[in-house]
Amino acid sequence: MKWLSEEEQQAWRAFGTATRLLNERLDRDLQAAGMPLTYYELLVMLSEAPDGTLRMAELARWTRSKPSRISHAVNKLEQAGWIRREHYTEDRRGWLAVLTDEGLEALRAAAPRHVTSVRAHLIDALSPEQLRQLEEISRTLLDHLGE
Amino acid sequence: MKWLSEEEQQAWRAFGTATRLLNERLDRDLQAAGMPLTYYELLVMLSEAPDGTLRMAELARWTRSKPSRISHAVNKLEQAGWIRREHYTEDRRGWLAVLTDEGLEALRAAAPRHVTSVRAHLIDALSPEQLRQLEEISRTLLDHLGE
Repeated sequence: MKWLSEEEQQAWRAFGTATRLLNERLDRDLQAAGMPLTYYELLVMLSEAPDGTLRMAELARWTRSKPSRISHAVNKLEQAGWIRREHYTEDRRGWLAVLTDEGLEALRAAAPRHVTSVRAHLIDALSPEQLRQLEEISRTLLDHLGE
Repeated sequence: MKWLSEEEQQAWRAFGTATRLLNERLDRDLQAAGMPLTYYELLVMLSEAPDGTLRMAELARWTRSKPSRISHAVNKLEQAGWIRREHYTEDRRGWLAVLTDEGLEALRAAAPRHVTSVRAHLIDALSPEQLRQLEEISRTLLDHLGE
């Protein structure tokens, strides 16, 4: 194995810190609207699925989350009335997560704040050229990670 | 407020997904060595502090974590014998986190695996030019976020 050079180390640290801080800033802005970023992302995923419905296993796979973490989030979203759980009709062992009208409403209410936050802290903070580079770098990483 | 253009939306989604997947891959690789990424980062921070010692409040501020999350992680690290807690001598209300010899040993044992993982999934996945761009982009974001 080969240690990181000074340059590589600096790039990695800057990147790691920037993404962590950005994520925390976006979460904080959204929390101020009463919704943690992780819940928002789950609601977005459901809103884009046919009939606002996904299997719990798909939800876990798409978010790359541990099943235990998804269960916890889904419980909270269910308590808030934003999703409901249903059994598959064809398989009583499996569960579906379904976006409710209230959930869609909550998502729509939170969206402008989130978009404003993404624009302020990422999109407008970078030059158009940097944003283009960042997308290309992200796609390279996604290819590598097998997406 | 101004919605994201199609291009901006695609860049933001690619970036968000890439960083989440990268983080989860690095965490999974390190978990295989018995140490979650968050614990590793706390041990690194302590190992770089004078006498391997930081105030709990500093640890929370540096990691940008909620105090409750830091407390939980510190409890786990203490149970593993990797850090110990001490009162300030000058202020009985405050706590210090101190890296133990066992903690330093655990960090050294995990480091090669983590570095190999960072190199494989980030450094070597990008061209030198992309890595340079990513550092510049990260520094721009850090400046903006007030670091």
